[in-house]
Amino acid sequence: MKTTHDPVIRAGAPQPISTAATAQGTLLFVAGQVPMRAGKPNGEDITTQTHAVIDMIRNILVRHGCSLSDIVKTTIWLTDARDYPAFNSAYAAHFCTDAPARSTVISQLIAPVKIEMEAIAVLPNSP
Amino acid sequence: MKTTHDPVIRAGAPQPISTAATAQGTLLFVAGQVPMRAGKPNGEDITTQTHAVIDMIRNILVRHGCSLSDIVKTTIWLTDARDYPAFNSAYAAHFCTDAPARSTVISQLIAPVKIEMEAIAVLPNSP
Amino acid sequence: MKTTHDPVIRAGAPQPISTAATAQGTLLFVAGQVPMRAGKPNGEDITTQTHAVIDMIRNILVRHGCSLSDIVKTTIWLTDARDYPAFNSAYAAHFCTDAPARSTVISQLIAPVKIEMEAIAVLPNSP
Repeated sequence: MKTTHDPVIRAGAPQPISTAATAQGTLLFVAGQVPMRAGKPNGEDITTQTHAVIDMIRNILVRHGCSLSDIVKTTIWLTDARDYPAFNSAYAAHFCTDAPARSTVISQLIAPVKIEMEAIAVLPNSP
Repeated sequence: MKTTHDPVIRAGAPQPISTAATAQGTLLFVAGQVPMRAGKPNGEDITTQTHAVIDMIRNILVRHGCSLSDIVKTTIWLTDARDYPAFNSAYAAHFCTDAPARSTVISQLIAPVKIEMEAIAVLPNSP
Repeated sequence: MKTTHDPVIRAGAPQPISTAATAQGTLLFVAGQVPMRAGKPNGEDITTQTHAVIDMIRNILVRHGCSLSDIVKTTIWLTDARDYPAFNSAYAAHFCTDAPARSTVISQLIAPVKIEMEAIAVLPNSP
């Protein structure tokens, strides 16, 4: 069984994306999030943007009864490899113990930001 | 339990890739698809290529009793950020409601095409 | 239920990454692995690096009672499209039959290597 949650709205128009989708009530797939707010990057530097994107993901998880500690896997795309150390420090502040498995690569992004992050979490009442 | 489906054939030779693999009879992982047909790109523009790659994924899903509406997550790699608006319009024609969670980034690809797309779907008889 | 395994250590410091994380005792998410050993690339050419990174993933799987044949999905990032044929040959030596679904794209990486690879496997005692 699939359940979707919260269509993404951009510039007032619904996009063909759900913020998150649930598989069989056990796994929550969170769409790639970018630190945009009201059509603008949420901060200029990678530290601010990393905290912002993780806050967005935390908010999505909370709406489904999860927290960051339920994430099993993240994928992170950075636009500039030189941002990695500052990104990693900001990220570490949110994932102190039992961190998710993670892949981090360099890609250009659609939005004018320095980071995109997606996540897979385990829903709390799953077996 | 893992089950694989349909080895990928390229230029007449089996590749070390399955078109799709099933985990425990519940999740179907569809390999990254590119809009190639008979060794050539299936169309030149992003609109044609997007419809072509989604048709390929639909066909794979149908063979496993699924449809596009069972997809919970897609990852899309575009080679050119300027193709995003046309890609998004073509994609939206196939995912009108309950769209999957989605991540879209810019990467170069192996095949001479403008898009690669992978998908995770929930199998119909899963709990 | 989420279970994490083996925090990643780099340059002697624990990183905010687990080598692998398990969802509900059924799926094992293996973090993106790069062929680094003692702070240096494990070989210079793509063939050596591909064998090295697959060996790393095999070792992680073995610690969880799995083997390469339990992998349902891999994602591979190469830094140079010209490396694809040699990568594919080396990869094929490890995935002869029932190969995982796979996506392979071109990205720059954080570590000074030519390949990063992540995997999703089905745990052996899952339903």
